[in-house]
Amino acid sequence: MQLSTPELRERFEHALAGRGFAPEDARESATLFAEATRDGVFSHGVNRFASYLRAVDNGRIDPAARPQVVMDAGAFVRMDGGLGPGNLNALRAMKEATDRAAAHGVGCVALANTNHWMRAGSYGWQAAEAGCVALCWTNTIGNLPPWGSTEPRLGNNPMVIAVPRSDGEHVVLDFAQSQYSYGKLSIHSKNGEPLPYPGGFDEAGTLTTDAAAIERTMRPLPVGMWKGAGISLLLDLTSSLLSLGRTTRELSLQEEEYGVSQLFLAIKPHPGPGTPEYDNRIEATIDDLHQSAVARGSGEVRYPGERVIATRARHDKEGIPVDDAVWKEILELSRPAQ
Amino acid sequence: MQLSTPELRERFEHALAGRGFAPEDARESATLFAEATRDGVFSHGVNRFASYLRAVDNGRIDPAARPQVVMDAGAFVRMDGGLGPGNLNALRAMKEATDRAAAHGVGCVALANTNHWMRAGSYGWQAAEAGCVALCWTNTIGNLPPWGSTEPRLGNNPMVIAVPRSDGEHVVLDFAQSQYSYGKLSIHSKNGEPLPYPGGFDEAGTLTTDAAAIERTMRPLPVGMWKGAGISLLLDLTSSLLSLGRTTRELSLQEEEYGVSQLFLAIKPHPGPGTPEYDNRIEATIDDLHQSAVARGSGEVRYPGERVIATRARHDKEGIPVDDAVWKEILELSRPAQ
Repeated sequence: MQLSTPELRERFEHALAGRGFAPEDARESATLFAEATRDGVFSHGVNRFASYLRAVDNGRIDPAARPQVVMDAGAFVRMDGGLGPGNLNALRAMKEATDRAAAHGVGCVALANTNHWMRAGSYGWQAAEAGCVALCWTNTIGNLPPWGSTEPRLGNNPMVIAVPRSDGEHVVLDFAQSQYSYGKLSIHSKNGEPLPYPGGFDEAGTLTTDAAAIERTMRPLPVGMWKGAGISLLLDLTSSLLSLGRTTRELSLQEEEYGVSQLFLAIKPHPGPGTPEYDNRIEATIDDLHQSAVARGSGEVRYPGERVIATRARHDKEGIPVDDAVWKEILELSRPAQ
Repeated sequence: MQLSTPELRERFEHALAGRGFAPEDARESATLFAEATRDGVFSHGVNRFASYLRAVDNGRIDPAARPQVVMDAGAFVRMDGGLGPGNLNALRAMKEATDRAAAHGVGCVALANTNHWMRAGSYGWQAAEAGCVALCWTNTIGNLPPWGSTEPRLGNNPMVIAVPRSDGEHVVLDFAQSQYSYGKLSIHSKNGEPLPYPGGFDEAGTLTTDAAAIERTMRPLPVGMWKGAGISLLLDLTSSLLSLGRTTRELSLQEEEYGVSQLFLAIKPHPGPGTPEYDNRIEATIDDLHQSAVARGSGEVRYPGERVIATRARHDKEGIPVDDAVWKEILELSRPAQ
């Protein structure tokens, strides 16, 4: 079926309000899920919503928890997420970071004891809308081997880097430290199609495009091989040490992933978007990128976030295609309990 | 020949003092070059020193320039490097960042109009010695194609992430956004040896381990393919927009690379190194990494910085092997002009 962003948001909001979310919280969480879907990130939008509801129902997410400042050094604060909804905790942590950046030029929030933030890019778009350059990242349960190892002791630790533009078409990069997600591997494995580029190691320890082999070995390729394995470790250490939250090692000792650690950094450009010093620099760079000669067999050269903006416009115009079974489950889960 | 770190430093200091560096500046720059060499980074240590002297001689580096604060928002400042020595500018920018972090919890310095900082990792070690978590990066002249393009319109933009440990054996990751450096490609190309993993594209647009082919196409592989190309763009935008310095596009319009843009971020963990909350988390993670099962054919699993520490210890004990021709050139360049 085709649905609009407001239709998605209203349904999500209704479901959350029926589950103990305060009205403002229900609205904000629903907006994050609806906007992720509108932007084409179905995996962390509508397709993830039912499992978010179930995590509330089984007590894994506490809908009443709000992140609390537990250490305040002025421009850097530590917050405790109280195992609340990961997307709302992240939204508020980034809000705190951009508020501190407005006061001090830069703001840093280390958030412990939170949950999966759903779509990583959401918080980059949020900061860019607030006129800030931002970086944020999360640790995860172990799912990626250290370089030279066969055991998944590192997380894929998604990271976001965002830069605002005065026209709202921000540059937002959202990437995990594995070359392909397990979701992507699963699609290729089910369809029996090779990956476009090597994505991990097979049983013989050889780089392969065979997604099923990588699922068996649990040895997906880190971004840039030894480099991404290093980045993953550093993102885990920085987020957990600055927040005093769980490390990937500690998360991996649990049966499930909960209580992750995150870091949010916002910097206020001065002068910023809307001034010629700023706008001329970024627009000339983007124009230059668009003028790059294209390799044979490649599509146009785009900046990170450009595809999101195109998808958003298409969905706003044509509606959003939602899987019938996914929607049916959400409708059932959002009926009041008998 | 075998030389000690103090012997290197004294010779470097002498050469710089004879070229208009103030005594303190000569000593600090010499120390950076000597320590990079001691840590095994010859390419940005002793092997680079003669070209640094020549850049002073031909006026590309102004030995009298010192970075000036041109905008101060409290925890975030912009500095102008005045085309001074890149290593000293970076040292002082990171010092400013860690000082601001001590006062506000986090400090951010955006540095415009500076020069090549030599060994990137130096400033990560510096911040870690000051008890800070740090990130820093620089833009460069274009040397890496956007994903899907054949033209090197992006920089390889080295980045550092550092985390302090109470025993001084810090975790410091230092990586450029190309899978292999042009230096590494050149060694493999001269020796006719294939790269261990694909490192770029050949003339047919196919991923290859043939270093000579990559030198010809100037299409080295970004770290994580499309991901590293995105990271490179974001590192260029953030460093140039926050500093109001040159972008990679602007650097590429020059005949040579000078006047680059850099960003320095330091965060003061609280509690930090030396407390059980901090030390137990990091030590348990490093122990866990060391206990990883090793893949067939791989050496031991190490954390970023561990090899540096081993090299440092070996050089301290056995002396540092310096190429005779490299040393001879430095001796000649450090004689007083007739």
